[in-house]
Amino acid sequence: MEYSATMEIRLKKIWEWMAAEGVSLVMLEDCESRRDSNIRWLTGHPSDALLFISLNNQEKAGQAVTGKNAPGQAVLVAWDLNLAKLYTRAPVFLAAYNDFDRQPKKAIAAVAQKFGIPPGSKIEIPSVTPYPVFLDYVGELTDYDILCRENGAGAEIGKYRAVKDKEEIEILRKAVSITNELIDLLEKNIRAEKIKTEADAALLIEVESRKRGCEGASFGTLAAGPQRSFAIHAFPGWTCAPFGSQGLSILDFGVKYEGYCTDVTLTFTRGLNPRQEKLVSLVEKASKLAISMAHNGTPAKNIAAAADAFFARSKKQMPHGLGHGIGLQEHEYPVIRNSAGNEWVLEPGMVFTIEPGLYDPILGGCRLEHDILMTETGAEVLTASRIIRL
Amino acid sequence: MEYSATMEIRLKKIWEWMAAEGVSLVMLEDCESRRDSNIRWLTGHPSDALLFISLNNQEKAGQAVTGKNAPGQAVLVAWDLNLAKLYTRAPVFLAAYNDFDRQPKKAIAAVAQKFGIPPGSKIEIPSVTPYPVFLDYVGELTDYDILCRENGAGAEIGKYRAVKDKEEIEILRKAVSITNELIDLLEKNIRAEKIKTEADAALLIEVESRKRGCEGASFGTLAAGPQRSFAIHAFPGWTCAPFGSQGLSILDFGVKYEGYCTDVTLTFTRGLNPRQEKLVSLVEKASKLAISMAHNGTPAKNIAAAADAFFARSKKQMPHGLGHGIGLQEHEYPVIRNSAGNEWVLEPGMVFTIEPGLYDPILGGCRLEHDILMTETGAEVLTASRIIRL
Repeated sequence: MEYSATMEIRLKKIWEWMAAEGVSLVMLEDCESRRDSNIRWLTGHPSDALLFISLNNQEKAGQAVTGKNAPGQAVLVAWDLNLAKLYTRAPVFLAAYNDFDRQPKKAIAAVAQKFGIPPGSKIEIPSVTPYPVFLDYVGELTDYDILCRENGAGAEIGKYRAVKDKEEIEILRKAVSITNELIDLLEKNIRAEKIKTEADAALLIEVESRKRGCEGASFGTLAAGPQRSFAIHAFPGWTCAPFGSQGLSILDFGVKYEGYCTDVTLTFTRGLNPRQEKLVSLVEKASKLAISMAHNGTPAKNIAAAADAFFARSKKQMPHGLGHGIGLQEHEYPVIRNSAGNEWVLEPGMVFTIEPGLYDPILGGCRLEHDILMTETGAEVLTASRIIRL
Repeated sequence: MEYSATMEIRLKKIWEWMAAEGVSLVMLEDCESRRDSNIRWLTGHPSDALLFISLNNQEKAGQAVTGKNAPGQAVLVAWDLNLAKLYTRAPVFLAAYNDFDRQPKKAIAAVAQKFGIPPGSKIEIPSVTPYPVFLDYVGELTDYDILCRENGAGAEIGKYRAVKDKEEIEILRKAVSITNELIDLLEKNIRAEKIKTEADAALLIEVESRKRGCEGASFGTLAAGPQRSFAIHAFPGWTCAPFGSQGLSILDFGVKYEGYCTDVTLTFTRGLNPRQEKLVSLVEKASKLAISMAHNGTPAKNIAAAADAFFARSKKQMPHGLGHGIGLQEHEYPVIRNSAGNEWVLEPGMVFTIEPGLYDPILGGCRLEHDILMTETGAEVLTASRIIRL
């Protein structure tokens, strides 16, 4: 794929941060048990790889491939080298994971040697590295100071990613526009009774998203008809059960376009009793309330707390957080949750969901989820999510 | 759901192991960033929960719910209590994750207090716990000895699960029978040109698996037509591109039935050139060779090494392992790989894949993947996987 100047800018941020932190080498890891979309954000390569980011300020370095002023270099160690050659858009060396017996610690040692990283230097590994694996690295890589910390490179990249750049916002706008087309199509087909089951709804999303150039759904679609909508996340995600029939049906889905995820939830209602009407009305009001509070400079926690307090006044409790950032992952920063220690404050460039919901084993469930973009002038509701009364 | 005696037997194994190891409390965690199907194996509850398993040999214990001779008790702390009530089949207490502010360390402290676990006792947390999280637990739970180790409770359960019990083999046979029906249906529809694209193939699997009572596909179907089959795992998994057209098309899929996964790969060929024919022929021969070596008592590594050596004689290299166990996860024990430290030996009750493959950026890729059950009398090939010449 074509070279991306944006990705080089992203890498430069990390190199600057590393210089300030005195970290010589950073390893990121995307593998089956520990996914990390930071590698895609930095290189374009979609999955199953290690990414090493190294500073130039070591003896014997100077083999940068990013131009004469490059502050560092990077190596992508990919499980599938053919795929890496096709997708990598950043100025990185490529290597095969097999060359290191698929062992990160062997790759760390080899890269550290290649880039001439002096003994005693700080090498940072992902904060999600399991404790026993960390001990193994420390035991093997005795020449280096191995860092594994919450507020390290991964968290730093997470903070950059919480505020989308221009390229990302463009991609997300495209993803949202496809999502909104699908919402209209779903409503139309359900009203026309062309969609009668959970499977009909889920499959429409699978096919129509890909027809519009998406990689697919951003997560397993949750289509829960009246018998199953009591669950926050229906299990299984969808079945051949009726959808849009009498009661409350929840449809939670998103598309992935050039890696970027949308995430919306619609509730379809038919022939509700007064208690069900009340549930739906509370969710709609909570959604409006929360969105009206989304201003630049507002702590995200305050918004989530207001939604919780709103429900509490009707003796209801929402069993999940109010929302979450979206981007290359369907759940990322900022945190939109009423929890201790949530210090996220809304600012331009943030993209996140607002998704109040209530669930009852008898009445069923209702959730309404929008995707919001913070702009210089305030919150822009990107999505056409709605309660659809059949 | 109905109570399961099998699940109580499984819990009893853990209690016995805990008594022998002197571990007072074990916590398992299934969450978005760290999935653990051991909780489903032990309780039936499918996802998003903590499971605490405690021994009775502490002061003030004696609140067992598993009968008068029960060696311990267990608590399932579920994100979605409604779902937990529906799915839990084992003798466990239920609690809501929200009651502990969604913080495992708060849940650990509360459960330890409820069961009267004496100070100084060993409490085991998952081996995949990130190092910084481990430090946090140790800092907060100062009254206890917090264990986080590779060869702890999780690995022990993994070993039990590598050898399927009667109930599991019955479920897997049903899952395989549906998989084989789908293989026939796929061949028929591709020959009849009703399936012309990757999407057609993937969607058939989505729908027809659920029609037959499956929870869905066991993983995102990989349908890669001739333009994309060079990748080990095509990215994206499937698109609207042609499938079964001139060249090599790979279809890697599985179904999930009552939680249990199958995993097969077919290669469809059309109008191959001699180099492509050679590739296919090598993969077919490697598959036969590996299956013929699968005997009770044979080290799995030897089989994988033989396949690697077979390819090496033709100057080819397989860029992935030969196979893996299947069960509640699509990848689990035993390890069927030619790697240092792989000490798995085949024995009756093991169920695993054999999936040799070769990939070339020009010719395309070919993989043939079977699911194998070891019985008392040797290997039984469960699946009807094949190279399908169009």
